[in-house]
Amino acid sequence: MTALTLATIDTPAAIVERPRMQHNIARMQARMNALGVRFRPHVKTSKCIDIARAQRDAGAQGITVSTLKEAEQFFAAGFTDILYAVGMAQHRLPHALELRRRGCALSIITDGVASARAIAEFGRANGEAFDVLIEVDTDGHRSGIRPDDDVLLEVAHVLHGGGMHLAGVMTHAGSSYDLDTPEALRAMAEQERAGCVRAAQRLRDAGLPCPIVSVGSTPTALMAERLDGVTEVRAGVYVFFDLVMRNVGVCSTDEVALSVLTTVIGHQVEKGWAIVDAGWMAMSRDRGTQKQKRDYGYGQVCGLDGAVLDGYVLSGANQEHGILSHEGAPDTDIATRFPIGTRLRILPNHACATGAQFPEYQALGEDGALQTWGRFHGW
Amino acid sequence: MTALTLATIDTPAAIVERPRMQHNIARMQARMNALGVRFRPHVKTSKCIDIARAQRDAGAQGITVSTLKEAEQFFAAGFTDILYAVGMAQHRLPHALELRRRGCALSIITDGVASARAIAEFGRANGEAFDVLIEVDTDGHRSGIRPDDDVLLEVAHVLHGGGMHLAGVMTHAGSSYDLDTPEALRAMAEQERAGCVRAAQRLRDAGLPCPIVSVGSTPTALMAERLDGVTEVRAGVYVFFDLVMRNVGVCSTDEVALSVLTTVIGHQVEKGWAIVDAGWMAMSRDRGTQKQKRDYGYGQVCGLDGAVLDGYVLSGANQEHGILSHEGAPDTDIATRFPIGTRLRILPNHACATGAQFPEYQALGEDGALQTWGRFHGW
Repeated sequence: MTALTLATIDTPAAIVERPRMQHNIARMQARMNALGVRFRPHVKTSKCIDIARAQRDAGAQGITVSTLKEAEQFFAAGFTDILYAVGMAQHRLPHALELRRRGCALSIITDGVASARAIAEFGRANGEAFDVLIEVDTDGHRSGIRPDDDVLLEVAHVLHGGGMHLAGVMTHAGSSYDLDTPEALRAMAEQERAGCVRAAQRLRDAGLPCPIVSVGSTPTALMAERLDGVTEVRAGVYVFFDLVMRNVGVCSTDEVALSVLTTVIGHQVEKGWAIVDAGWMAMSRDRGTQKQKRDYGYGQVCGLDGAVLDGYVLSGANQEHGILSHEGAPDTDIATRFPIGTRLRILPNHACATGAQFPEYQALGEDGALQTWGRFHGW
Repeated sequence: MTALTLATIDTPAAIVERPRMQHNIARMQARMNALGVRFRPHVKTSKCIDIARAQRDAGAQGITVSTLKEAEQFFAAGFTDILYAVGMAQHRLPHALELRRRGCALSIITDGVASARAIAEFGRANGEAFDVLIEVDTDGHRSGIRPDDDVLLEVAHVLHGGGMHLAGVMTHAGSSYDLDTPEALRAMAEQERAGCVRAAQRLRDAGLPCPIVSVGSTPTALMAERLDGVTEVRAGVYVFFDLVMRNVGVCSTDEVALSVLTTVIGHQVEKGWAIVDAGWMAMSRDRGTQKQKRDYGYGQVCGLDGAVLDGYVLSGANQEHGILSHEGAPDTDIATRFPIGTRLRILPNHACATGAQFPEYQALGEDGALQTWGRFHGW
C-alpha cells in the first residue's frame, strides 16, 4: 500500500503539521519550566492520544479533560493523573467513582454549596474521599467563586468537613481571548494568578489544606511574567494555535499546526469565487475572528505547502461547500489561479471546534508522509 | 436493563421527538403529493438510517447525499437510488464508479466544462455511462450554471456527446434561508422552479435528453404554489426544523423535533446565569439566528416536556459550558428556578449543525422511552 500524502488523501481532511505542533509544545513547556510550575495540558483541544503523549514526552504532568469520556479514553491509554475541569454534575458521580476505583487519579471541581454537598454525601455513602478543587472566578468569564466571596470558605468546609480531600483551587481566565495587546494580556495573567493565589491563601488562613493552585488559558500562560504561588498551569489550544490566537497576539499564522485540506470543485468566475469541498461541516461554524482585529471569514487559505495566500479566505460556507474568494475586489482570474482539482489548505478560526468535526487527524511529517491519528467524538 | 429516559440518560444528548418528526415528514410528503412531484429527502441533515427509513415509509423516492460516505452507508442499508448533490471532484470518480458497479444507482452532478470532461473521460476509460445532472444556479447562492448561460449547453454536449447519461438538471435556492415573508418565499420558490425548468427546456430544445428536473430547499418546497415542469423536490432540514426555519417562517418552535438535553451544573446568581453542560460542542457554533428577526443566542430553552420557556436562551457557550439566561433583565431567581441538577432541553439554531456534534440520537417516543439511533460522522 502506498503511503498517503497531501496529494492523494481524500478531502476534506484535518492535517496536523507535526514540526509546528512540536514547536508549539516545546515553546509552552519551556515557558512553564522557566516560570517554575507544572504544566497540565487540556486535551479537549485534540482529544488525541498521540498528541497527549507528545505533550507528556515534552514534560507535561497530568492532563485536563472536559468530559468523562475523555477521562475514560485517556485513562485506557495510560494517563492516570486527570483533572476533570467542568463543574461536577451529581448524576456523573457514580462514573467518577468507578474511574477512581479502577485506579484513575481523577480530580473533580465544584463552585457551589449544593454541588459540594452532593459530592461529599455521595463520597461518604460510598467510602470515597474524592479529590476536589474549588473553581475560582478571576475574570467574570463563566463559572467559579470570587476569591473574596464567603461562599469560598463555605464550600471548602462542606468538602473538608465532609471527608473529601480538598485538593486546591483552580481558575480559567477565559476572557483573555477577548484581548489583543501584550499589556492587557500580561495584566489578565496577573489578575488570574493573583485571584487564584488569594483564594488559596484564604483557605490556608482558615486552617484548610490547599496544595494545588491551578490557573491557565493559552494567552495568559504564554504572557504571564511571574507565577508566584501557582503550582500548575493548564492550556489547550496552544498545541495547534489558530486564527483567533493569531488575533489575540500569541502566535503567527506560520505557527498554526492544524489546517483543513480541501479540493477546488467549481468556480463562479464573475464573482471571483472558487467553490471548495470544505464547508462548515469541515471548518465548523466557528466565526471567532468575526469581531477581532482581522476577520478571516471561515478560514485563511494556504497553498499545499502551508504558505499563506495573503488575502484569500473562505468567505462563506454551506454544509459541504466553501466559498473561497479574495478580500476586496473579486479575483476574476480565480479559475486560472485555482483550477478544478487544486488542493489547498485552510487555517481554522478555532482549532478546538474544527478538530471536533473530524474522526481523525492526518499527521504530516517533514518527509511528506501522513500518519492517521484517531480522535474521540461525543460524550 | 431499565429503559433510558430523559431523566436518566447522560447529558448532553441529542433528542429526537418522534411524533414531531413524523408530523414534519407527513407534512412535507403531503405537500409534494399535492403538487404532483416525487420527493427525494436530503439525508445530510440526519445522517441516520432510521430517519431515512421513516421518510421512505412516508413516500419518499430515493435520497440525496452530500458526501460519498453517506452514499456508502445508506447504500449498505438498502437505499439504492442516490443523488450525490455536491459537484463531482475528479479524485472521487473511482469511488463513484465502484459504488455503481456494486449496484448503487448513484447520480452525480457538475456545473463546469472541465469537470464534465473529467467525468466523461473517466467514464469512457472505464466503460461506465455515469448518470449526470447539470447543476443550475437560480439564485446566485453558490454553485451552478445560470439557465441562460451558453456554458449550460456546452456542458450538456460534453456529457451527452461523451457517452454519459444526461439525466437532467438540478438546483438549490439556498438563498431562501435569508428570507422571512410568505411573499418573498413564494417568489423564490417560483424563481427556483422557473429557472430550472428553463434550463431543462433549453437542453430539450437542443435535442438533448433531460428526464429529471430537480429543485428544492426546505423553505421553497413548503411555500411553492406550483411546480409545473418539476419532476422531483429535495429538502433536508424540514425533518427536524430549527430556530432558523422558525425565523424564516416555515415552522413554529413547537414543530422543532431536535433538541439537546442538558443539566444545570452551576449558577452565577448576580448575573442571572445558570451554567449548563451543553456548550458549543453540543449545540455547534452555529449562530444562524444572529441576523434574523429573533436572535436566540445558541438556542431556545425548553422544559423537560419540550415546552418553550419564553425568554430563556443559551446566551453564551464555551466548549462544554453553556450560559443560560433570561433576555433583558437578569433573572436573579435563576438558582431557585433551575436548581443544580435540573434537566432542560435546548432547541438549536441549525439542526444539521447540532446533529453533527453527536454520534447518535435518542429518539423519544410518546411513552417517554428513548431508543438510540446511530448517525455518521466524518467523510
